[in-house]
Amino acid sequence: MKAAIVRDKQFVVDEIPTPVPGPGQVLAKVRICGICGSDLHLFKHAEELLSTAEAAGMVIDKNSELILGHEFVAEVVAFGPDTEQRFNVGDRVCSIPFRKQGDQLLNIGTPAAQGAYAEYLLLTEEFLVPVPDALSDEAAALVEPLAVGVHAVAKSAITDSGSALVIGCGPIGLATIAILKMRGIEQIVAADYSPRRRGLAQQMGATLVVDPAEESPYQSFSDEPNGEFVVYECVGLPGLLKQIVDQVPKQAKIVMIGLCAGDDSYTPLTAMMKEVQIQFVYYYTPEEFSQSLEALSEGRVNWEPWVSSKINLDGVANAFRALQDPEREVKVLIEPFSK
Amino acid sequence: MKAAIVRDKQFVVDEIPTPVPGPGQVLAKVRICGICGSDLHLFKHAEELLSTAEAAGMVIDKNSELILGHEFVAEVVAFGPDTEQRFNVGDRVCSIPFRKQGDQLLNIGTPAAQGAYAEYLLLTEEFLVPVPDALSDEAAALVEPLAVGVHAVAKSAITDSGSALVIGCGPIGLATIAILKMRGIEQIVAADYSPRRRGLAQQMGATLVVDPAEESPYQSFSDEPNGEFVVYECVGLPGLLKQIVDQVPKQAKIVMIGLCAGDDSYTPLTAMMKEVQIQFVYYYTPEEFSQSLEALSEGRVNWEPWVSSKINLDGVANAFRALQDPEREVKVLIEPFSK
Repeated sequence: MKAAIVRDKQFVVDEIPTPVPGPGQVLAKVRICGICGSDLHLFKHAEELLSTAEAAGMVIDKNSELILGHEFVAEVVAFGPDTEQRFNVGDRVCSIPFRKQGDQLLNIGTPAAQGAYAEYLLLTEEFLVPVPDALSDEAAALVEPLAVGVHAVAKSAITDSGSALVIGCGPIGLATIAILKMRGIEQIVAADYSPRRRGLAQQMGATLVVDPAEESPYQSFSDEPNGEFVVYECVGLPGLLKQIVDQVPKQAKIVMIGLCAGDDSYTPLTAMMKEVQIQFVYYYTPEEFSQSLEALSEGRVNWEPWVSSKINLDGVANAFRALQDPEREVKVLIEPFSK
Repeated sequence: MKAAIVRDKQFVVDEIPTPVPGPGQVLAKVRICGICGSDLHLFKHAEELLSTAEAAGMVIDKNSELILGHEFVAEVVAFGPDTEQRFNVGDRVCSIPFRKQGDQLLNIGTPAAQGAYAEYLLLTEEFLVPVPDALSDEAAALVEPLAVGVHAVAKSAITDSGSALVIGCGPIGLATIAILKMRGIEQIVAADYSPRRRGLAQQMGATLVVDPAEESPYQSFSDEPNGEFVVYECVGLPGLLKQIVDQVPKQAKIVMIGLCAGDDSYTPLTAMMKEVQIQFVYYYTPEEFSQSLEALSEGRVNWEPWVSSKINLDGVANAFRALQDPEREVKVLIEPFSK
């Protein structure tokens, strides 16, 4: 099969053996796979991120090649041994991006488990979720990033009267905005330097968009000093937490969603004098993944504007370059079998 | 009056004018005042801490001299204009360490408002709390540090079945342990390099004490990977948060109580993969201050072991040196009028 493999910090489209499903696994044909911001991070900072991740308990196979891709919609092709076969061959499925191996959960799209920048991949049967016929591949590819928003908003425990500030309007920021909107949060301020992304944020439900180069996004909250204030950090750059801590009002909650490589610093005394709470979030629960699928199936999320282009495996290298420019691309979807 | 003043990073005991109470204020005679860990920090890192504090909104009078001391018991001496005079001259009182000035609250024991390392100080009448006759000056001097523990445990929202790890067994660590014990928390592990402080932690109610030089304090929690796990950081040194994040189990809460000067760094990806929550805490509410006084009055806290020595104003400089050695001193109380 064909796959876009990361070799020496470059994408190489190469033929590799189609994997063979083991016990409890299915072989699945990739219909579509989104490019995630964390894929860009992993491509750029693989060594640093993976050694940190390994120290924190992620299982990594150092001999394995890196094939990214964890936002996929696939079709069941074949069943391994010890499977229940509750799907038919050809059924469209998605899945939380983990593969079971004994007691361990391997992260799909990392050196732990091959991802979906490829024609086929192995999935764990018990994690498969059917994709309703009415849901397009494009929309279903967004179940995974939207689930990150579902989880972040749930973990933030924002109350109905709370005010939200979303920093960074890439796909995760947009997912967070969409879920805050669904939750009925009345004040959703979104900040991004890119005019295109600010426009998308508005389409997703932001009530106010701010260009941080022009004005402080914190300003709009100053009238309500006693209300609950939650900042969703959807960028993942060093120095950003420090900036947020310096600018938030007292008692603010900061939800850290953006993936930031390396170490980062902030000013503890400022955090202390404001009694801020910093909540880190990672993935989502299987229930939240299903809630995300449900929200998309029910048409409760205006997902179309997210998708900025569709490519095949040969286009991955270019797409990674184009994604550096927030004016050009938002969510790029890979269709491994398109010409 | 006499006061121990910080001048050029030295303590100088000098005569200064006794302050005159303004509207809403009383003049109070200091009976006793504890030396707090934050006083040591402020003495060492005054410039750095004060510029950070000012940026975060603390009112600072740059022309004022620094007279520390915010853990005091005092006696009402005279009333300023516009006071209700609901106390008698000679009544023993304590107070949250703030002085009202218009809409602002000035922190007593900082350049904002003179502290109690002096014979007299000004207090805001409405903040005064009477000290019950049965409570000794020594015990009442601990109301303030114990209130920090009351607040930290309340903010942590630890549940009855939660497990606690207290890092650092100085006065604030001991206060936290005492309150966790009062709350009925069953597993209270305390870590400190000092044998004396580990002994005190045990007297306060720690169920297990650990010398971090010998073994990991996190080890004792490994059997219960799904239980709630709260770490109380009561040291305030750079690098400690990073170490805690690296070692806690997933979903841990980290409560930051120790005052740390300057910037500090940690590893965001590790925090993220573990979904840790970091809650910064600062002071306490007036209600929590009263709860602390109540706990001491009702004899629910074994406070005697905390007090390691009593001195007068001339002894402050030496005490600050002695407090560097955790084997020598824990809580030093200043009695400005003792010979």
